[in-house]
Amino acid sequence: MSGTNKRELAKFEADGAGPAIILVEPQLGENIGACARAMLNCGLTDLRIVNPRDGWPNEKAVSASAGATVVLDRARVFESVPDAIADLHKVYATCPRKRDMVKVTLNARSAAKEIRAHWEGGRNVGILFGPERTGLFNDDIALAERVIAIPLNPGFSSLNLAQAVLVVGYEWFQTRDDLPPDETLFTGNSRPATSGEMQNLFDHLEGELDQTGFYTSEEKRPSMVRNVRNTLHRAHMTEQEVRTFHGIIAALVGRKKQRG
Amino acid sequence: MSGTNKRELAKFEADGAGPAIILVEPQLGENIGACARAMLNCGLTDLRIVNPRDGWPNEKAVSASAGATVVLDRARVFESVPDAIADLHKVYATCPRKRDMVKVTLNARSAAKEIRAHWEGGRNVGILFGPERTGLFNDDIALAERVIAIPLNPGFSSLNLAQAVLVVGYEWFQTRDDLPPDETLFTGNSRPATSGEMQNLFDHLEGELDQTGFYTSEEKRPSMVRNVRNTLHRAHMTEQEVRTFHGIIAALVGRKKQRG
Repeated sequence: MSGTNKRELAKFEADGAGPAIILVEPQLGENIGACARAMLNCGLTDLRIVNPRDGWPNEKAVSASAGATVVLDRARVFESVPDAIADLHKVYATCPRKRDMVKVTLNARSAAKEIRAHWEGGRNVGILFGPERTGLFNDDIALAERVIAIPLNPGFSSLNLAQAVLVVGYEWFQTRDDLPPDETLFTGNSRPATSGEMQNLFDHLEGELDQTGFYTSEEKRPSMVRNVRNTLHRAHMTEQEVRTFHGIIAALVGRKKQRG
Repeated sequence: MSGTNKRELAKFEADGAGPAIILVEPQLGENIGACARAMLNCGLTDLRIVNPRDGWPNEKAVSASAGATVVLDRARVFESVPDAIADLHKVYATCPRKRDMVKVTLNARSAAKEIRAHWEGGRNVGILFGPERTGLFNDDIALAERVIAIPLNPGFSSLNLAQAVLVVGYEWFQTRDDLPPDETLFTGNSRPATSGEMQNLFDHLEGELDQTGFYTSEEKRPSMVRNVRNTLHRAHMTEQEVRTFHGIIAALVGRKKQRG
């Protein structure tokens, strides 16, 4: 699944970075790169890295980022979590497991709505993600106001780092108010058929079927006509498709005439 | 981020598999394994693979699945997409790019709601995912009733296969009616403090502050008292935390007395 559009990308950069993604002591460069990719997928560009195990910059991060170099180039490295979050007004900690702490836990969707509201209010927001194997340390979670948990199969909830970043970032992206509608019918070079065009198609089809004796009983004809009309209406046909179906009917009639 | 719970896992298997995930001509075993992991994260176990390039079974799929062997063990391999979907009533195609086809496109969230409704109605549902580099072929998309698109940064929308499966599966999981509430306060071994306990804490604090001359003006005292009460109420304290704060006040007063 590919797709990079330079003009749209520039628009997102100009948009501002959205919440910071803070990776605490990540181990593998590949994972940092995959996180950068997931971030840019979701329009996020403020990456902060606390004590990356293998140093920084990291070649493996670049190759795993699938071209999300704009995120890696701007990434900032910090020596401690308090340093990394000092300028933030609201800090969230991602945490897959229940810890023995008295803490408000939000699911990813509710957290995204809340973060959007903070963001629109001009507040700096950041989201902490822990090291691959252990997740965040309790002391780091205590630095956050709230915890984000991703509702998943409780019998198998293990996500890798970039997947966790992707789900949280995906929910952030869904809070934009400029997204396409939930459902769209792409009609290409054509346009939806008018009711008059559909009626012409029905007239053509029903006329030919009358000729062939398809309607065996005058009594049942009205309901059979309605059923076929309903079927074709459910197809939301375009003007081009209506013309194609006129052609199909003509071709089938022609074939019958050839045979007969 | 780890977590495997055998009892919960068994519950999900008994639940039934949810929609089938159909990987069309996947290339890398690692990607198939990562998809299996993402599926099980989302409680999905019906994996169908059409012409995997490197054959099946695949050792690299097993090692990349992070233990989601229940999905790989049950995976079925087919020689064509029509074979893989023959028993399904509703088929969706994932497609990141606009194709020149007249087709209804749903975002992942709307598709998940629709799929849940089909599933509850007893219909077999499947979701097609194309090969890594090209995505689905147009002929395969034409086999599906509807297309699913994941709203992401239009300037950088490239997702790897397992990430696409994860987002679609995540949205499916969010349609469950047995999820935890959007926001919860985990209070561990303690319980929320009662209003009476909070009042005792305020009395203790304000009494000590009266002694110290903290309230410089009788006129301003009421609003200062209200502000501090509001601050502590926003903390949603537990009974244990209230006791800790009584101790903190006593300790601070003791320190002051020592000094004085």
